[in-house]
Amino acid sequence: MRQHSIGMDDEALRDGLDRAGDWIREYFAQPEAHRVMPAVVPGQIAAMLPETAPEEGVPFDEIFADFERIVVPGTTHWNHPRFFAYFATSSAPAAIVAEALAATLDVKAMLWRTSPAATELEEVMMRWMRRLLDLPPQWTGVIYDTASIAGFTVLAAARDALGLQIRERGMSGRDLPALRIYITGETHSHVEKAAIALGVGQENVVRVACDDAYRMRPEALRAAVDADEKAEMRPLAVVATVGTTSTTSVDPVAAIAEVTRERNIWLHVDAAYAGPAAIIPEFRWMLDGVELADSLVLNPHKWMFVPMDLSVLFLKDESIVRRAFSLVPEYLTTPEAGVVNYMDYGLQLGRRFRALKLWFVLRHFGAEGIREQLRRHIALAQEFASWVSVEPGWEVMAPHPLSVVCFRYAPAELDETQRDAFNAEILHAVNATGEVFLSHTKVDGRYALRLAIGNLRTQRADVEHAWNLLKREALRMKPR
Amino acid sequence: MRQHSIGMDDEALRDGLDRAGDWIREYFAQPEAHRVMPAVVPGQIAAMLPETAPEEGVPFDEIFADFERIVVPGTTHWNHPRFFAYFATSSAPAAIVAEALAATLDVKAMLWRTSPAATELEEVMMRWMRRLLDLPPQWTGVIYDTASIAGFTVLAAARDALGLQIRERGMSGRDLPALRIYITGETHSHVEKAAIALGVGQENVVRVACDDAYRMRPEALRAAVDADEKAEMRPLAVVATVGTTSTTSVDPVAAIAEVTRERNIWLHVDAAYAGPAAIIPEFRWMLDGVELADSLVLNPHKWMFVPMDLSVLFLKDESIVRRAFSLVPEYLTTPEAGVVNYMDYGLQLGRRFRALKLWFVLRHFGAEGIREQLRRHIALAQEFASWVSVEPGWEVMAPHPLSVVCFRYAPAELDETQRDAFNAEILHAVNATGEVFLSHTKVDGRYALRLAIGNLRTQRADVEHAWNLLKREALRMKPR
Repeated sequence: MRQHSIGMDDEALRDGLDRAGDWIREYFAQPEAHRVMPAVVPGQIAAMLPETAPEEGVPFDEIFADFERIVVPGTTHWNHPRFFAYFATSSAPAAIVAEALAATLDVKAMLWRTSPAATELEEVMMRWMRRLLDLPPQWTGVIYDTASIAGFTVLAAARDALGLQIRERGMSGRDLPALRIYITGETHSHVEKAAIALGVGQENVVRVACDDAYRMRPEALRAAVDADEKAEMRPLAVVATVGTTSTTSVDPVAAIAEVTRERNIWLHVDAAYAGPAAIIPEFRWMLDGVELADSLVLNPHKWMFVPMDLSVLFLKDESIVRRAFSLVPEYLTTPEAGVVNYMDYGLQLGRRFRALKLWFVLRHFGAEGIREQLRRHIALAQEFASWVSVEPGWEVMAPHPLSVVCFRYAPAELDETQRDAFNAEILHAVNATGEVFLSHTKVDGRYALRLAIGNLRTQRADVEHAWNLLKREALRMKPR
Repeated sequence: MRQHSIGMDDEALRDGLDRAGDWIREYFAQPEAHRVMPAVVPGQIAAMLPETAPEEGVPFDEIFADFERIVVPGTTHWNHPRFFAYFATSSAPAAIVAEALAATLDVKAMLWRTSPAATELEEVMMRWMRRLLDLPPQWTGVIYDTASIAGFTVLAAARDALGLQIRERGMSGRDLPALRIYITGETHSHVEKAAIALGVGQENVVRVACDDAYRMRPEALRAAVDADEKAEMRPLAVVATVGTTSTTSVDPVAAIAEVTRERNIWLHVDAAYAGPAAIIPEFRWMLDGVELADSLVLNPHKWMFVPMDLSVLFLKDESIVRRAFSLVPEYLTTPEAGVVNYMDYGLQLGRRFRALKLWFVLRHFGAEGIREQLRRHIALAQEFASWVSVEPGWEVMAPHPLSVVCFRYAPAELDETQRDAFNAEILHAVNATGEVFLSHTKVDGRYALRLAIGNLRTQRADVEHAWNLLKREALRMKPR
């Protein structure tokens, strides 16, 4: 056995891992022991910590005690079964084990040579996902940290594919047309951030009109493209969303693809949240027409039970992304030919071994086990919507095809402005109990409460509890 | 106790965590049980895996057995004490425990509200690091995944700070000058990738001449800026490197900063690898003049014993980055005022709880414990260089101020072309033993072997072993 000269010797390592293991088990067994949103005010946690790093090391026990004393009660518990905010997520135990192993191996999955197992496991996982999603066989997948980076990457690739030599010569100091990206008012903000970063500019992000179910109108898209081309601007890409962030509306991919193919524009499908549900036969319709698109992103870290971060980007032609980003300095040249070097597909060079947790989860649940969970979440959301829709004074505010419901308390005696304010108060009151955590959005400009279901441990009783709290607080605070 | 409807029940979770804990302990106790570079050929690992995901779940034991059977022997072991390639890194046990806990909490550290503890711990860790590095008190830090993303982010911010309304109006379809970024031939490739992505273009990345120790020549920088301004191009940023990737040369930050302040150009200091060593008093000189720069990046995941990914970006004026990237959709507006919402500082929205592992490591080692390790690594590299320099036929190829040595076998009887080829053969032969893993680079256009030290468990005997293998293989294969 090797002698260590490091801070954590074998015995301390054993204690540390055992202690963490015990804590993790208890955490999952008794989530109700924690408030969902912590009872802390800004600055309170920082005030519990010293202003300088210690000069001498401290025993692991002491660190762990502070983790329990400071971090745990100061955390918003995303893994809590009563977390209903944003997109509710869930980190499966098998994936947590995988993350510990990945941190131990700590490979940088940038070149095949630096990580053969990580590289090939990623390739195989992408084939598993491709088949589960029923995508064309020539499509290939790459794992990124987030859908934001994946979306940024394809938009950069789409820009490169315009053939304007932007990679080499840049966009300024020469005569190039304005580039245009088409989205809707429901599209995730990362597309606009990408437009800023890529030098496209916010003004060149075109918001195409939606129908009354918050879906992009293909004929409005065609008109917008026409107008831009007439004005000598150059369409760069269209982003269609399958499962928008506010209402989970599903843009009509096939009809949009008709326009993008006709006009030869890159079509990116952002299915970050809803994509995993497309492995369920009765929900595969959401991706109808995706075979006519150029790229598709979905986030297993949203709704496939792996912890942040793991976003999957599928590409019809991966060589376009590689051509846009590959840049190999001498010290990273390798003798292997015909291998995938994942650093060629984006900005980042070093990459974590993310495929491991996806492998653990897909195998531990099996595809059918995952489908069962997603169906269960969707059914719970539908049941919740049915409760809201029959409750006097309450209303569902948008179609709810998946596991998210937008709703509000809208009694006849309140006008729209009052309703906005009152629902914000209800949200605040409900969240302040610490028993549940919901978030809000706006639907057609009106304040909406939003309940999202996605946790492995969320049961009907948890949803019911949220509903009872909402009704109770609305009644208690009811304006007279 | 809550009843679960999920794949991994309490008992399986206990088994899984215990089994992973045992495996991690054994892994660190007996690293020699593994080849550093695996004996696999491309495709071999993929061939061991089925082509489709299982429909039904399998017991955790089976998954873990496959991890040991397929992944472990197929991995390049970055955490091995005889890993001497690229920048050698080391994942400390305390950080691995932290990663497991972070994956369990699985917070998205995007808004204060979604993660008060993660947000404030990040703020405090950044203050700890700022003091350890002796940076100006008004500087603030943000954690990113990689130095590539951090560098990209500051270059985007620097572009925004030019006042050309690029965020709003974009870079094309209008009359803007070409933007210029100044680096050297030794600068990390991520800067050129950022230039591509930002629409600056590869042709606008200017390589300033170096002195004979591979450091940027400030007067050459000044001349390059002059020439560009005369040609009506617009300087965007200068990137100085503290610890270049090939030779770990240190650009003269103070002298470069004189030029950038004189001409009002953003100065970014890339200390991804060497930055952590600046917490050692006798190595703080490397950052002399950094207080005159605009931003500084360093990677605790390179040389501060946290696993991928954790890169720290310090900013003189964080508001510039926030202004360049902040974009808050309705569903992410929050009632808290005066708090940090880290999603405002970059492309990514969701962010992992990375500060936790830095906290665990800084406390478990203490600053002095980390300094002790870095000094030890540097001393080992210096000793290795001394062996090479006195060995007939061998030579050190560049100054080696830190923990990396570039060297080669260059007997008089071989010409330069033969030397290049022969050293590549030596590298191949040495790595093929599986006992050590080194990488290469080019120094002044000549093939160089490169030995990097950075592992907590690397001992003098490991370095000696590498040296003996190198000499043995050179002798064995010696061209007649």
